Amino acid sequence: MSISSTKPDAPRRGRPGNDRDDVISAAVRLFNEHGYEATTIGMIADQLGVSKSAIYHHVRSKEELLAAALDHAMGALEAVLDDPRAVTGDVVDRLEFVMRGTVTVLTGELAEVTLLLRLRGNTELERRVLERRRHFDRAVAQLMQDVADEENIRADIDPRAATRLVFGMINSITEWYRTDGPLNGQTLGDLVVRLVFQGLRARSS
Amino acid sequence: MSISSTKPDAPRRGRPGNDRDDVISAAVRLFNEHGYEATTIGMIADQLGVSKSAIYHHVRSKEELLAAALDHAMGALEAVLDDPRAVTGDVVDRLEFVMRGTVTVLTGELAEVTLLLRLRGNTELERRVLERRRHFDRAVAQLMQDVADEENIRADIDPRAATRLVFGMINSITEWYRTDGPLNGQTLGDLVVRLVFQGLRARSS
Repeated sequence: MSISSTKPDAPRRGRPGNDRDDVISAAVRLFNEHGYEATTIGMIADQLGVSKSAIYHHVRSKEELLAAALDHAMGALEAVLDDPRAVTGDVVDRLEFVMRGTVTVLTGELAEVTLLLRLRGNTELERRVLERRRHFDRAVAQLMQDVADEENIRADIDPRAATRLVFGMINSITEWYRTDGPLNGQTLGDLVVRLVFQGLRARSS
Repeated sequence: MSISSTKPDAPRRGRPGNDRDDVISAAVRLFNEHGYEATTIGMIADQLGVSKSAIYHHVRSKEELLAAALDHAMGALEAVLDDPRAVTGDVVDRLEFVMRGTVTVLTGELAEVTLLLRLRGNTELERRVLERRRHFDRAVAQLMQDVADEENIRADIDPRAATRLVFGMINSITEWYRTDGPLNGQTLGDLVVRLVFQGLRARSS
């Protein structure tokens, strides 16, 4: 290593001051705003103020950016299901953990999850990711069923429909949540858990 | 009226056997499947097995079809808010009526509401419809606030966030509901009301 490379404020040379994650983030923002089809590598380069070849220094194609973003979002959701707190212990606690964890991923990786939830399965890549989503959905539905089997949820609520409604509610957070708004992910997770398990209605007792 | 026109099974002549509503329904199906931009009048004609000029017999443009479908969906939602049961009486009953009514519109006008919920405000028409949606959302949020003001909902649940979560849950029904599935709109409305007001958790009392 030369001495000059450690000098403070030395201008960077050779490759631009963006790493692969910056490129992915910029791509996700543009995909969400304009749609994947309408977004070009040139638009991503403009967004970062670099040349197209600087983008191709990090990735081979636009699809590689989509794949990386979707893998990041799915990986974060799958990590919730793989956490020991989702796997062992009381089933109600496990369901509660998965609900909170999903809200945390949604609010923490808002752009990537928004992209994930809008997928329609138009390409082979999208279909593979949707298959991972279905796997996640099935695991969550099984957890709700386990909670129902232990008679921890009201008998007059069908667990399959409840799963769809509860996770539909959680997914809908991407439609309105703002990272610079008053609610952080943890507060929102608490609110969702309270609403889902105990309901809105004030009790006179 | 000539006698021949009342003869059973007389072949229809002059204009095709589709009315304007059939054209709108076919258009909405295609808009939801391929997107509004990618859908052409030719595709709508093919879907109905008629010529393009037969479509132009009923409507002047593709945008007129979009406008009619969105107006139909918004009109049905607005009718719920204008119903006397949404306007007078106990506020909890009014909120419950609006929740059930919204579920009924979603499940009854599934394709039109799906189209409505996917709008991004890309055109002047879309922006006008989104303004009607915001008006609906504000009325519903006010109703939730009225319920909170009468201390009918738990003090530890913020009414604004609750409105977003509850109506996000209701809107998410369009993502999975099938009109030929086991749940009808009324059963689903009952389930949503029960889940939202009383929560999932079985009570030992």
